[in-house]
Order: sequence, then structure tokens, then C-alpha cells
Amino acid sequence: MKKSLFALAILSASINVAYADEGMWMPQQLPQIAKQLKAAGLKLDPNSLTKLTEFPAGAIVSLGGCSASFVSPQGLVITNHHCVYNSVAQNSTPERDLLANGFVAHSLAEELPAAPGTRVFVTKEVLNVTDKVVTPAVAKLSGKARSDAIENNGKALQAACEKDPGHRCTVSSFYGGLEFYQIKQLEIRDVRLVHAPPAGVGKFGGDTDNWMWPRHTGDYGFYRAYVSKDGKAADFSKDNVPYQPQHVLKLAKEGVKEGDFVMAMGYPGRTNRHRLPSEVQFTFDWFYPAFVKASADNLAIIDRETKDNKDLSLKYAGQVAGINNYYKNRQGMIDSYANSDFLQRKTAEHEQLKNWINADAKRKAEYAQDVANVEHLIAERDAGVKRDFHYSYAQPRLLTTARMLYRLSNEAQKPDAERKLGYQERDLPRIKSGVTALVRTFDPKVDKAIAMHHLKAYLAQPAAEQKPAFNAALGIRAGMSDAELSAALDKLYASSKLTDAAARDAWLGKKPADFQSSNDAVIKAAVALYDADLKEEAQEEELAGKLQQAYGSYMKAKIAYMKTKGQAVYPDANSTLRVTYGNIAARDHGADGTTWTAFTTVNGVVAKATGKGEFNAPKPQLDAIKAKQFGKYVDPKLKTVPVNFLATLDITGGNSGSAALNAKGELVGLAFDGTLDSIISDWDFNKANTRDIQVDLRYILWNMQHVDKADNLLKEMGVQ
Amino acid sequence: MKKSLFALAILSASINVAYADEGMWMPQQLPQIAKQLKAAGLKLDPNSLTKLTEFPAGAIVSLGGCSASFVSPQGLVITNHHCVYNSVAQNSTPERDLLANGFVAHSLAEELPAAPGTRVFVTKEVLNVTDKVVTPAVAKLSGKARSDAIENNGKALQAACEKDPGHRCTVSSFYGGLEFYQIKQLEIRDVRLVHAPPAGVGKFGGDTDNWMWPRHTGDYGFYRAYVSKDGKAADFSKDNVPYQPQHVLKLAKEGVKEGDFVMAMGYPGRTNRHRLPSEVQFTFDWFYPAFVKASADNLAIIDRETKDNKDLSLKYAGQVAGINNYYKNRQGMIDSYANSDFLQRKTAEHEQLKNWINADAKRKAEYAQDVANVEHLIAERDAGVKRDFHYSYAQPRLLTTARMLYRLSNEAQKPDAERKLGYQERDLPRIKSGVTALVRTFDPKVDKAIAMHHLKAYLAQPAAEQKPAFNAALGIRAGMSDAELSAALDKLYASSKLTDAAARDAWLGKKPADFQSSNDAVIKAAVALYDADLKEEAQEEELAGKLQQAYGSYMKAKIAYMKTKGQAVYPDANSTLRVTYGNIAARDHGADGTTWTAFTTVNGVVAKATGKGEFNAPKPQLDAIKAKQFGKYVDPKLKTVPVNFLATLDITGGNSGSAALNAKGELVGLAFDGTLDSIISDWDFNKANTRDIQVDLRYILWNMQHVDKADNLLKEMGVQ
Repeated sequence: MKKSLFALAILSASINVAYADEGMWMPQQLPQIAKQLKAAGLKLDPNSLTKLTEFPAGAIVSLGGCSASFVSPQGLVITNHHCVYNSVAQNSTPERDLLANGFVAHSLAEELPAAPGTRVFVTKEVLNVTDKVVTPAVAKLSGKARSDAIENNGKALQAACEKDPGHRCTVSSFYGGLEFYQIKQLEIRDVRLVHAPPAGVGKFGGDTDNWMWPRHTGDYGFYRAYVSKDGKAADFSKDNVPYQPQHVLKLAKEGVKEGDFVMAMGYPGRTNRHRLPSEVQFTFDWFYPAFVKASADNLAIIDRETKDNKDLSLKYAGQVAGINNYYKNRQGMIDSYANSDFLQRKTAEHEQLKNWINADAKRKAEYAQDVANVEHLIAERDAGVKRDFHYSYAQPRLLTTARMLYRLSNEAQKPDAERKLGYQERDLPRIKSGVTALVRTFDPKVDKAIAMHHLKAYLAQPAAEQKPAFNAALGIRAGMSDAELSAALDKLYASSKLTDAAARDAWLGKKPADFQSSNDAVIKAAVALYDADLKEEAQEEELAGKLQQAYGSYMKAKIAYMKTKGQAVYPDANSTLRVTYGNIAARDHGADGTTWTAFTTVNGVVAKATGKGEFNAPKPQLDAIKAKQFGKYVDPKLKTVPVNFLATLDITGGNSGSAALNAKGELVGLAFDGTLDSIISDWDFNKANTRDIQVDLRYILWNMQHVDKADNLLKEMGVQ
Repeated sequence: MKKSLFALAILSASINVAYADEGMWMPQQLPQIAKQLKAAGLKLDPNSLTKLTEFPAGAIVSLGGCSASFVSPQGLVITNHHCVYNSVAQNSTPERDLLANGFVAHSLAEELPAAPGTRVFVTKEVLNVTDKVVTPAVAKLSGKARSDAIENNGKALQAACEKDPGHRCTVSSFYGGLEFYQIKQLEIRDVRLVHAPPAGVGKFGGDTDNWMWPRHTGDYGFYRAYVSKDGKAADFSKDNVPYQPQHVLKLAKEGVKEGDFVMAMGYPGRTNRHRLPSEVQFTFDWFYPAFVKASADNLAIIDRETKDNKDLSLKYAGQVAGINNYYKNRQGMIDSYANSDFLQRKTAEHEQLKNWINADAKRKAEYAQDVANVEHLIAERDAGVKRDFHYSYAQPRLLTTARMLYRLSNEAQKPDAERKLGYQERDLPRIKSGVTALVRTFDPKVDKAIAMHHLKAYLAQPAAEQKPAFNAALGIRAGMSDAELSAALDKLYASSKLTDAAARDAWLGKKPADFQSSNDAVIKAAVALYDADLKEEAQEEELAGKLQQAYGSYMKAKIAYMKTKGQAVYPDANSTLRVTYGNIAARDHGADGTTWTAFTTVNGVVAKATGKGEFNAPKPQLDAIKAKQFGKYVDPKLKTVPVNFLATLDITGGNSGSAALNAKGELVGLAFDGTLDSIISDWDFNKANTRDIQVDLRYILWNMQHVDKADNLLKEMGVQ
């Protein structure tokens, strides 16, 4: 079931033209735009930004899905509240509700283990390995053979690189598979929760304000990275000591103001700025609307099943936050798309490219067939996505876990280098953490309700779109009544011990024969599905291999065409370290009848505060604002404490928690969101519209000092 | 119970300094500011604005509480939706809900009678009569004698003026009683509802958006004035014909834009810009908070009692709208006050005035004692307001009506000229309409619930603060249980026929003896209260006479002081015709993190529309917007139809429906609201903050043409 890393990378990575105020630059590209950076106001040497082990890049880390930064020599990490949210939720109980009340560790001893699987990745090295991945021999292959060869070359590179203990190496595709880079990261596995403000600050505005401006969210939180006494990455141990990073960010002493240069360093996940017209059309006309509908359904189901049980609500709080986030994001993109001429422009650009290709016999011979093929291959892929949409949502999580465990057991029989990517020795800690994490984020009743909902839709599809092996394994069939379907699921859950955490963990080390002889209903289903799953994976890899070849050729044509127009390119985001720069900027259009100023202030917190729900600003905070206890955090122009600010930075999901740095590379805030009407920038960057949102460092420090009394951390960061 | 006109006028009228962008000018004052008007952009001769019977002032009318304008030679009157709201509500039934669906009369025959008591007042003449009201003889009087003499002189003037049939004359106090003007108005009594858009347009945004920006309310509606065939004001008759005004407003052919000169002519009700510090403190620290609390209580009671009964809801819709409006207004002023240094400034100004008075022996002799006295008198008045606060809310409306009827019966025994102001022959039609109107706006259950609530608070006050005659008349006493109090009220209502409209109307012509011998419980209570009510009125008049003298002297001192600083004055608003001018202007601060643009557009209607409740934009309107059926009403810069716009006009309650005119005196919109954070301008004008809200004429005409198909009216106004 797990799509290979390279297949995913091929589907997600793309290229783009670099406009002003647009660009997620690879650090090594920055010297190419040194002039623009200087003109925009950067006071550092642009060359210094390319050095991953120097200031400031040396202080920037990934949490895997979020970005973060070291802010003390004792491994203190600052990121967004929503990036530490699951760790806060998992340490919360109805009796000690850290989400509601916030948490400050006043000493190392008070720090709490982060959610299982939490990692801090410190990027150490980035190498161009294109010629080692797509060797001359690979270039001649097609389909699954090509896909396998790329995967094997990548695995070999990764394995060699990971000989350095405690490091994780990844070979990532850039420019639609034209280039591959090997990224080496120190993988810190002992991560602890240090501080999170109350949800009434860290999540102030909740889903109502999410993706919105004006915004007043204190979206910050702190982890600490721990290593063994000899400084190596290690599993959690009370003997571990704080990691000492080579570089930490300096906190700016002066606040920022409108117009100031600002840049963000972080790990943007994925953009789609150079997709083909057919991909745009499929996404906006079918996929996103279907996704929005499914998200709304799932939210309603979780709400219905958990609302009377605080323990259950806490268990699903993180998932609800995640679904809500993407739900609003995709709906926002759909709305923007409806009001735009994006598809027309896309189509026109694509026609221009084809005209350019066809205008020259040599170019036509090199690219024309691939460009035609890529459209067919995309259509095939999209048909599969459509067919398997409800199927993918309908999977009971225990069954997904069991399939993964059985696959792992099978792969473990092979030498490590021959195992499927994602099931190698290097992947075991992550897999183990994921299995353990289920304890705190899974409930059979809720899980069944979601599965039921989508199984019904799946079973209503034509027989040809269903999976016979899946139906047989679960004992389900088209035409079943709700009661029968429910009974089939009950049977699956009731005849399985996988709901028990210890029983689930025990399967991690077992042999295939143990699975094959098990009477556990979920394990039996996983075993029964194995061959069909492998077959489906092989089909996907056949398609992926063809796509990589054709898509890469298409991208090569596009880059060549852009070059004739004098336009440089940066690769689409792919969860690797990038730099974006711009300015703190207001916007001349907000809600009809308004514009957006660049900053919000604590006055707006008071105006929005309702004392409950999503706008439950803590009383001590409101009291401090009322009493104007602002200390040194007053903005000279605003005459009060700034909360959030807008900038023209080019960010996307994954950038959450990215350090916003001033012209001297000092920390001035944390990026945490875009605005709903500009997030279509993931596909179509609009200079006039696109603004990202930062929480101002002054608000963070003010809250820590005047509201949460986190003086020990302020002292550690050199503030007090 | 009814405070005399002059007492009220003395309490409400004040003076103020004229700053730029501030001023509710009497038309005759405009030549004094001709230079400023020209500089601001006025293209008309300022002298022409002083002529009440010429264009444009000749087209401006009062509805008594709202302002309006003639827009066709056939007496068509344009005003706000909320000014015709009661007429729409009273013509609505659950079966034919004109509030929800809107109403267009496609011919004169389809027009509906406006709510009883609806009037169109056309101002014909304004005369300074100060020396006829405060004669040398009156100047020597004090207390009640002075109050009576002023009232008698005023009545005599009014009586002489009203010898012209169909006219209403009023002697109003200006500059705190220093000057008196006689205003002569044609009083049109046959008024009919012609057109109102659906509440989803006319009240779009409801109470949520009331006093707010950004705003998207189509707050417009149309009446028609009817007179007898010989052109005289007359009661409703099917033989009446449309009134032919001497002047009608021209509709601007070109739309307005930001920065444009704009002025409004209308009848602002009341401002308080030169109150004493003690009045400011009492109002904001006690009276407004108490008012807000009582309003919230009454709204909750009405909601509770009417929510399951659509007929009852419709009956109380107008009152709910009225309470909500003032509730939000007063709360807004309280909030602005809390964030201001208003009282400190007031106090400093007052000290400066006293210093100026005391710095000169002659001035000290003339003013010092009066300035000291005025503070004592105000304290006495405020103590009474505080004491009688719940008492005033606790009055069953039937009892109030009965007291008024009995007083009228008693006054009717005297020659007309000797009757109390408000109970003369001239007042009968208004009184009669009020009595008749009760049919559609009163329900015993709701009325009792409100009375109960406040009676409980009243009865909890110390005995010395209660009214023995009132308690005796209602059979109530301190310490009663809720059940006993409820029974006392039930007895009052049950033993009265006044709930019956015909029975109530029948009392209008009866003699005092008829009242005295009646067994109707409410009539009996009114008779029993008569002597105590008269005694209380006499006490109020004693205080009013003293206040008029001392307050007038204080104001005279203030005017003299301001003159030494070279500052001219305009009188505070007192429901007489005024002109204010300014510009269409954005504002650099909105909700925290936003600014306000000068215009909203139909895009915002779509964004806010929810399909229900307060944001229930009609589907045909949304369809027209979506299809961009904008006709000629597109703004060239906004590229869509503007809805509302902000201006710096100095307006207040009573200005609702005021024509907003461009530099050529052509209609460009209707003023209908201020914004919550700037309505403290009634007390303290703040140039940077104060914006009023207009509905753009283009939105009105677009809705009429493209949504409501009111083509007959567009044609009548010369648009089509």
C-alpha cells in the first residue's frame, strides 16, 4: 500500500519560474540571487546562507512536517503551538488539561516526553546525486524496472550515508525527477515538551480564525532535543542530556515594522506551481471537492462519537485539528480557483510550450511524444485516485497497521539493502513509534464509524471499481445492509487483540509464519490481502516509472523553454530546506470594505475574547493587557504589543514554525499560516494577494514574561 | 407624567464649538461658513441652502424621528428601511410576510396605509422668537412660574401659527434655552407604504452588523404623501391624492467616489456635546450601564414570550429593533468612553471656564452663582432619574395610556389655550393615532412580563424611593411574592376592557366624570394616580424652571468664553432641520489588523450571505450578482455595484433617512447609521474616528431594477 518515496516525489515535485516575492530557494541557489537579496535589504553575506552548518542555517531544524529552530545552546527548540499540539494533547488528561491551561517546565526535570515518534532533524549535508541515481543504465529502462532501479540506487546511497550512526539520509527528487539530492540529517529521537501557552493563546481563534486575517494567535511552543551523554542521537533515557547545537538563532532586540526585510528558513512540504492543465482540472474540479466533502463527513463523525467523552475528545483533538486545517485550506483553494482564470492561463502556457516544441524538428523529436504520453499517464493515475477515493478512507486503522506489520515481517526476511524502501532497519524506530502512538490517538468506536461511512460509499461503486480481495478479507459485499456491514466490522474488531497496545507492539518482531498461523481477525485479513496489495503496488510502480521518464522529459522541455525567455527556475517544495525572502507588508484588500494592516495587536485579543470556546483568552493575559503591563515589548508606532504580522514570504505547509529572520538573520517571529484567499499560491502564486502570517517574537516573549512566567526560558534564551 | 416640551428641550439642548468636519448647522447659519463649504467642494450657492422652500431644502422632510426626501412630483418619499419598518411590520401577517418578502406597489391603488400615526412634516418657516418667549417679565421669574410662563408664551405662539390649517408649529429651545425658534411645518397625515425591499436586503446583517463596518445593508424604503383633492393635509381617505411638493431631489446620474464632497440635510434628534462634567459622569458611569442592562433584560423577556408565536413576534418586531438599536448604541458609547480621557478633558475645560469667570469681577458677579447652582440642580435631577429608573420601565402600557386619556379628558375641560402642552386640540390626532397603534404593537402577556420584571426591582428599593399612590393604585407592596405580584397585575389586566381596541378608543371623547365612575381597573388606577402625577409634574417644572435659568446663564458664559478664543458655535441637535457637510472617506483603523475602505460592494453581500437569519440575501439578488447583471450601476473603479459608503458627516439619531447630496445638491445616497466606535460623537466629536454610513443610491436603484422589478417607481423618479 505504501507508495514508494520516489514515486511520491515524482508526483509532487515540479519546477517554477522565479518571480520577485516568489521562490522557495535551495540554500545553495542563494548566490544566484545575491543581488536581489541585497536590494531587498539583507545585511548578511548571501554566501553565508548557503552554509548549512553555519549561522543562521545551522540553527534551523525539521520536525518532519514542521520547521523549527534552536534558540539556546542547551538544545531549546522553538516552533509553532500547532506543531507541538499532539505532544501537549498526549500529555493531557481531564485532570491535568495542559491543552487548556498551558505548560511550563521550570527545570529540565519537569520536561515531558513529546508524542511518540517526535523527531528533531538537523540537516548536515546536501549533495547532488543525480548521476548516481539516474545512471546511463537507468536512463534506458522504463516502467517498473526503471522505478525499481531508481529506488535501489537511492537505497544504496542512503545506506552508505547512514553508516554514520544517528543520522538519517534521504535521496529526494527535484525538478520533477530531473535531479536527485542526498540530504543527510542528524535524527534526534529524544524530544521533550518544554513550554506551550494555554490553547486560549496558542490556538486563539481556533478554526474560526484559521487561515484568516486579522489574526491574534500565539502559535508558539518549545521542545528540547536530548542526546546521549556522548552527544549521539539516542532513544529516550533519563540519562540523556540536552543536545548542544553548533549554532543558535539570536533573538532580535529590536522589533520589526512594516516594510522591513524578512526571510524564513524552513522545510516547505509541497507546491504544485508547474502542473499540467489536466492535473489542475482534476484537482480543482474533482479531487479537492471530494476531499472537502470527506473531511466534513469525518469531522461530523468524530464530533458525534466523542462529544460526550472528554477523554475521547482529547484523544482525537490532534486529528480534528489536522482535518480542520486541510479542510479549510482546500475549500479556500476551491473558492479562489472559482474566481480565477488559472486553468485558462495554464492551458495557454501549455499550448505555448507545445508550439515551441513543435516549431523545431529536433525539439519535436526529443519531447513531443513524452509530452503526449504524460497526459495519458496522468489520466490513468487520476482515474485510480478517483476509483480508490472512498477505499482509502474506508481502511480501519488497525488493518492498516496490521498490513504494515506483516509487510515489515516479510521484508525483514531479506538482507537489509534488498528490503522495500520504508521497511529497512533505518525505518524501524519510526514504525515502532507509530504503532505505539496509536494508543493515544485511536478509539475503535470512532474508527469504526469513519470506516463504516466510507465503506458504504465504496460498496456502492460498480463491482469493477471494488477490490475482491479486500471484500473477501473483511467479509463485506455490495448490497449489505448497514446492520450487516456493522456486524462485519464488529467481528473484525472483536476478534482482534490489536486494540491492545502491548499485543500490537508484540507483532513488531514476529515472523511471517507467526502471522500466517494467527487467529487474530485483523492479522488474518492483513495476510489475506498481502498478494493483492503487492500486485497493486507493482502496478503503481509500473506507472510511476513511466511517469518519471515522461514527466522528467516534459520538465526538461519546460526548463529549456523558460531559459529562452531568460527566466531562472527554483524547484517546487519537497520538504527540504528552503529560504524565502520578502517584506512585512499590509494588503490593500481584505474583507469587502476593509484592507489589511501589517500588524495586529493585543487590543484585538481583547476585542475578540469571549471567555470561552475558541476565543478563550486567559484572564491573566487580559488583565495584563488592561493594566498595560507591556514591559519592553511595546511597539513604538503601535503603542502596544504586536501579536501577528503579514509578510510576502512564499511558504506552504511544512513551513509551520519556520523562523522569520530580519536582515541581520536574527529571530523576529515564527511563520505559522497563510490566508485563505491566498493559499492557492501552492498552485498559482499571486503577488498582489499572497501574504503569510507570523507570530511576532515580541508577543511570544511578552506572554512568556508577563502571563506565563516562563522566566527560566527567557533567561536561557538570553532575554532576561 | 409627560415632561413638558420645554423642560425636555432645556435638558437636551446645548451648544458647541464648530470644528472642521463637525457641525449640525441650522440652514440660516450656512452663509457664515460659505467659505468652508466652497473650499470643501460645494458647487451650489451656500445662500440657496438657507431657503427652506427652495431646492434642495424644499424637498427635505421629517417623519418625526426619521428624515426623508421627496423624489417625485407625485409625493414619493425616500427614507430608510428601518424608518418604514413598522409600517411594513404592521401590514405583515404570517400568510403575507412583507417583512421577509418585501413589497412593491405597482400602482397607487396597491399602496398600503402606513402605521397609524405616521406623518410627513414639511418645514415651511423658521422664526427666531426668543424675545417673545423669554420676555423681560419672564426673565425675572424662577422655578415653576418661569417654566409655566415659557410654556404659555410658547403655546400662544404655536396657537397663532397653527391658525393656518394642516400645519404644526413648534417652539424649540436652542443653545440651552438661550434662544427659541418657532418652526412651522405642513403636517401630512395620509401616508402610504409604496416599496420596501425584503428584510434580507433592507435589514441585511441585522443586529450583528448594526453600527458596524464593513456594512452591506440596503436600508431604503418609500412612502407616498397624500392630501385632500384641494391640496390640504387630511386624514386617510381613498379620495385623497398624491401631494405635489414644490421641490423634489434630483437623482445624481454619476456615482460618487472616495474624497467627494457630500452633505446631508435632515432632522438630527439630540446631541450632548457641551454637557457639564457631572452630567458626563452620571450618564456614562450610571445611566447608560443601567439602560443597557434594562434593554438586555427586556429583549430577553420579549424573546422568551414571543418566540413560539409568529404573530406575536411580528407585533413586537418593531420594538425589538428599536431596543436593539439603542442597546448597541449605548454599549458602544460606554466602551468608547472607557478607552477615552473624555471626562478628564471635560473637567479641565470646565475648570478653565470657571477660572475665566473668576478672573474678572463683573463676570464673576454675572455667572459664578449660576454655574455653582447648575451643578446642584443637575445632581437633584440625576438623583430623580436614578430613583425612578425601574419605576419608569415598570409601567404597564395600558395604565400609561389610561393616565394619558384621563389627563386629556381633564385638560379638555379648559379653553384650548390654557390646556397643558401636549394635550391641546392640535395634539389630538397624534394622541388618537397612538391609542389606535397599540392594537398592533401590544400584547398583555408580554407587557405584563416586562412590567413584572421591573416592578420587582422597584419594590426592592427603599420605601422612600417608592410612590405610595402608585403602589396603592396597583395593589402592590414591598415584600410581595412573585405570585402575589403576578396576581395583582393579572387583576389589573383582567378587570379592564382597555385591551380591547374599540373600548380603548371610546375613552378618547369621555368626560372626567365618566372616568371617575368607571369600574375598569386600569381607568380606576389612572384616576387614583392623577393628583400624585400632577404633584410630581409640578416638582419637575419647579426644577426645570430653575435649570433653564441657571443652565442658560452657564451657556451664555460659555459662549462668551468661546468667543474670546475666536470660536463660533452651532446649537446641539434638537430635531430641527440641520445641514452637515464633509467627504466620502476611508478610515485608517478598523478592527485590529484592518482599515476601512470608503465603499463596500455586492461582493461582500455574497461573502456574508448565509441563506438564513440576519444574512438572508434573497436568491434573485445573489443570482443577479453572480451573473454580473449590474446594468449601469457599476462603479468604474470598484468594477461592481457599491452598497454602502463611509463619510465624515456629523449625524445622529433622527438623521436616519437623510438625503446624502453631492456638490450639486443631487441625491447620491441615504444616511442610515454611524459606527459603534464613533457614536460617542453624540457627546465628544473625534475627527479621526467619526464616520457615518450611507446606502449608495446606485445600490438602491440596482436592486429596484434588477431584483425587485420596481420599474414603475424608477420611471416615476425619472431613472428609466
